Amino acid sequence: MQALPGFRDFLPDQCAARNYIFARWREVARRYGFVEWEGPVLEPTELYKKKSGAEIVDQLFNFTDKGEREVALRPELTPTLARVVTTHEREFKKPLKWFSIGQFFRYEKQQRGRLREHFQLNCDIIGEVDLAADIELVALCIDILCAFGLTEKDFVVRISDRDFWTNFLREKNVSPGRWEELLQAIDKSGREPREKTAEKLGELTDPVFALLKIGGKSEKLDKLADGLGIRGLADFVAIDVGIVRGLAYYTGIVFEVFDRAGKFRAIAGGGRYDNLIQQLSDGAVSMPALGFAMGDVVLGEVIKGIPRAHEAMQKAIASDRKIDIYFVIAKEERRADALTQLQQLRDRGYRVDYPLTATKVPKQFQAAEDVGASLAILYGDEWPQVKVKKLATREESLIAHDALLDSVAKFFNVSSSA
Amino acid sequence: MQALPGFRDFLPDQCAARNYIFARWREVARRYGFVEWEGPVLEPTELYKKKSGAEIVDQLFNFTDKGEREVALRPELTPTLARVVTTHEREFKKPLKWFSIGQFFRYEKQQRGRLREHFQLNCDIIGEVDLAADIELVALCIDILCAFGLTEKDFVVRISDRDFWTNFLREKNVSPGRWEELLQAIDKSGREPREKTAEKLGELTDPVFALLKIGGKSEKLDKLADGLGIRGLADFVAIDVGIVRGLAYYTGIVFEVFDRAGKFRAIAGGGRYDNLIQQLSDGAVSMPALGFAMGDVVLGEVIKGIPRAHEAMQKAIASDRKIDIYFVIAKEERRADALTQLQQLRDRGYRVDYPLTATKVPKQFQAAEDVGASLAILYGDEWPQVKVKKLATREESLIAHDALLDSVAKFFNVSSSA
Repeated sequence: MQALPGFRDFLPDQCAARNYIFARWREVARRYGFVEWEGPVLEPTELYKKKSGAEIVDQLFNFTDKGEREVALRPELTPTLARVVTTHEREFKKPLKWFSIGQFFRYEKQQRGRLREHFQLNCDIIGEVDLAADIELVALCIDILCAFGLTEKDFVVRISDRDFWTNFLREKNVSPGRWEELLQAIDKSGREPREKTAEKLGELTDPVFALLKIGGKSEKLDKLADGLGIRGLADFVAIDVGIVRGLAYYTGIVFEVFDRAGKFRAIAGGGRYDNLIQQLSDGAVSMPALGFAMGDVVLGEVIKGIPRAHEAMQKAIASDRKIDIYFVIAKEERRADALTQLQQLRDRGYRVDYPLTATKVPKQFQAAEDVGASLAILYGDEWPQVKVKKLATREESLIAHDALLDSVAKFFNVSSSA
Repeated sequence: MQALPGFRDFLPDQCAARNYIFARWREVARRYGFVEWEGPVLEPTELYKKKSGAEIVDQLFNFTDKGEREVALRPELTPTLARVVTTHEREFKKPLKWFSIGQFFRYEKQQRGRLREHFQLNCDIIGEVDLAADIELVALCIDILCAFGLTEKDFVVRISDRDFWTNFLREKNVSPGRWEELLQAIDKSGREPREKTAEKLGELTDPVFALLKIGGKSEKLDKLADGLGIRGLADFVAIDVGIVRGLAYYTGIVFEVFDRAGKFRAIAGGGRYDNLIQQLSDGAVSMPALGFAMGDVVLGEVIKGIPRAHEAMQKAIASDRKIDIYFVIAKEERRADALTQLQQLRDRGYRVDYPLTATKVPKQFQAAEDVGASLAILYGDEWPQVKVKKLATREESLIAHDALLDSVAKFFNVSSSA
C-alpha cells in the first residue's frame, strides 16, 4: 500500500524541512505585525464555484458528503478569508494583517513536480485601500524569501497593475463582459504560442504585444517602486505588465515571484482583490483587500537548487534536531537510578534520550553521537558517581550523582552564552 | 455563508490557543527524544476498512475521487504509520520514537462538543517489545499534560492490559472469533446500562462484573506501575481493567487519560498494537508497536476548566503575541525616514508595526498599547532625533535617529537578560 498519487508522506527528514519552511514563514510574518489565523480544509463547494475562475472548479477535490452537502477540499484560502472577515467584520479594528499556514488541494493531472496537495503561506491585509498596504505586502514577501538565505540575485518580484490593462480595454471600447477572458489571454501570453494568444485577442493582438514589449508604466506602479526603494528593496523588484494572474477576483496591483534562473514555476503570487468580500457577502460588507500565497513545494525546490540556502537549511535542521543529553546505562543495576534522574532532567526542559533495553556500551555512545547529544552521562561501576562526557571535546569527568542537575545546568548555561 | 457543520474557523485568538497546544505537544515530545513526521490527510479508504473496527468505517468522510479511487479523509493516524513504517522499514534504526501533529476527520452526528474535525498529537514507539517502551510512552503522555500546568489532582491515566481479558476469555473457553465483540462490550460497560452489556456478555456477565468490581491485577501491570513510580509519576496513574479501548487492533497494555472531575471525555488514549504492522503488510514486516493520541478539543476544554492552566495559557499567548516596537509617525514628512528604519529593525529580527496611513498621534499610541509593544518610536518635529518611549514605564528619551539601531539593541538585550 502506498500514499495516493500526488500526496506526500513526510518522513522525519522531509518533515524537518517542511517545519523549517513553516518556522521562517511564521517568524517573518510576525516581524511584520501579521497575526495568525486558519480556516477549515473542507468547505462548501459553492464557496469556490461562486468566486473563482472556471479553471479552479474543474480541479477541485469535491464530493457529496453523507449529509448530501456539496463539499470540497480547499484549493485556496482567499474565499474562506472573505467568508470569515464578512462574518466577524465588527470584531476587529481595520486594517487587519493576517497570515495563515495550511494545506491546500487540487485534483490536477499528475505531472512532474505537480502534486495534488501542498502547504501554503497566505498573507493578507484587509480594510486598507492605500498603496502603503501593497508596499507592506510586497516587502513582507521579499523578506520572507530573504529569511531562507535568498538574495536579489536569486529571485525577482514581477509587479503589475490590472488597472493598466482594464484602462487599456476601456480605451479600446471593449465591453466589460469580455475583460476577464482577455485578461486571461494576456496572462497566458508568455506561456503560449503567439498564434494561440492572437486567436483570443483578435484585433487587440498587435497593441497588446506592443505594450508587452515596451513595458507598461503607471503612476501607481512608480509609487510602489518608490515605496520599496525607501525600504532598500528596489533590487528585488521589476515592473512587468505581462503579469496578470489567472484568478478572476484580482483588481489593481498583482505580482508574482520567480527565481532569476527561470527554472521553476512562480514561488509566490498575489495582489489586490478589492471587490471579493463585497461579492461574497452579496453586498453586505465592502472592504478592500490584498494578499499573496507562497507554496512549500516550489520554495523547497528553489532552496535545494541554491547551495547557500540549502546549507543554511541543513544546518538549522541539524541544530534544531539535537538531543541535549544521552544516558549510557553501562550496568543494568543502575537503570532505575538513571531513569529517576532522566525524569528530573526532562522536567527541567532538557532533551534526554536513553536505550530502552540493555545495550552494549559502545553502541550506546554511537547512539549518543547519532542524535547529536552534547553530553553523555554514564551510569555504571562509578556509582554513586556518574561519568559525564562532553561529546564535542571527549572530555570526561566524574561527579556525584546528586550534583548532576547543577552540573548539567552549568554546562548548558555556559554553552548557550558562548 | 458559514463553515460546514462540525468544522472550525480559527480566528486569531483560537489560532493562538491551538498553537499554544501544538507548541507544548512538540516541545515535550522532543524532550523525550521523539522525532516528528506526518502523513497525508487523504488516504485510500481500504487502509481503514482493512484494519480498524466497523465503528470507524461508518463514520468516515469517504468518497470516490475523479480518478475512480475510493478515498477517505483520515480518521486516525495509526494505519498510515503502519503503512509508512512498512514501506521504509530498512531506512531507520529501531526502536523508532515518532510523533506527529495533524488534523483528523470523522463524519459523526452533530452533538455538543463533537466536531467533525480535530487536531491530534500522535506519539508512537515502533520496534520494541519490552515494557520499558510502554513506561516511556505513558510517562511522555503525563509530562505533556503537566506542560499545560495540569497536576495529578487534575487528571489520571487509567491503565489496563488487554491480555488480562483475553486470558480470562481463554480460561472460559470462549472461541477467539468472539473475543473482539466481547472486548467491545466490556469497553462500553461503564457507559451503558448493565442490561445492555449483559445481553452481549451472556453467561460471562457475572464474572466480568465481578472482575470489574474487585479490579484486575497482573504482573505486567505491577511492573508498569513500578516503572512509573521510579520516575516519580505514581500519583498520576491508576490500574483500571475497565479500560479496553474500542479499536480492534490493540494488544497488551492500553490506557486512557481522564480529568479527575469526570466532566470530559477521554483526554488521550492508546496502547500496544503489536500485530497491526504485520497485518497491514500481509505478513511481510512484523514489528511490535505502541502509541497514543491526544486531541486538541477535549484538552482545550480541560485547560479552560482549570483556572491555573487557563491563566498559564493566556499569559503565554499574550507574551508570544507581543510586538516589540511600534512606530508613531507624528509628521507625514517623516514617513519615508521612518520606513527606512522600520525595514532595518525588521531585518534584525524585531517585530515592528506602524500605521499604514496618516493617523492621529494618540490613536497611534493606543495601537502601540493594543499590540503590547515594548517601545514606541516617534518620528516628528524632533527629527533628526526620534523620541523613544518605553511603554511599561512611560519613560521617554530623545536620541539621534542614526543611533536608533544601537539603542534598540541595548534596550532589548537588557530586558531579555532581566
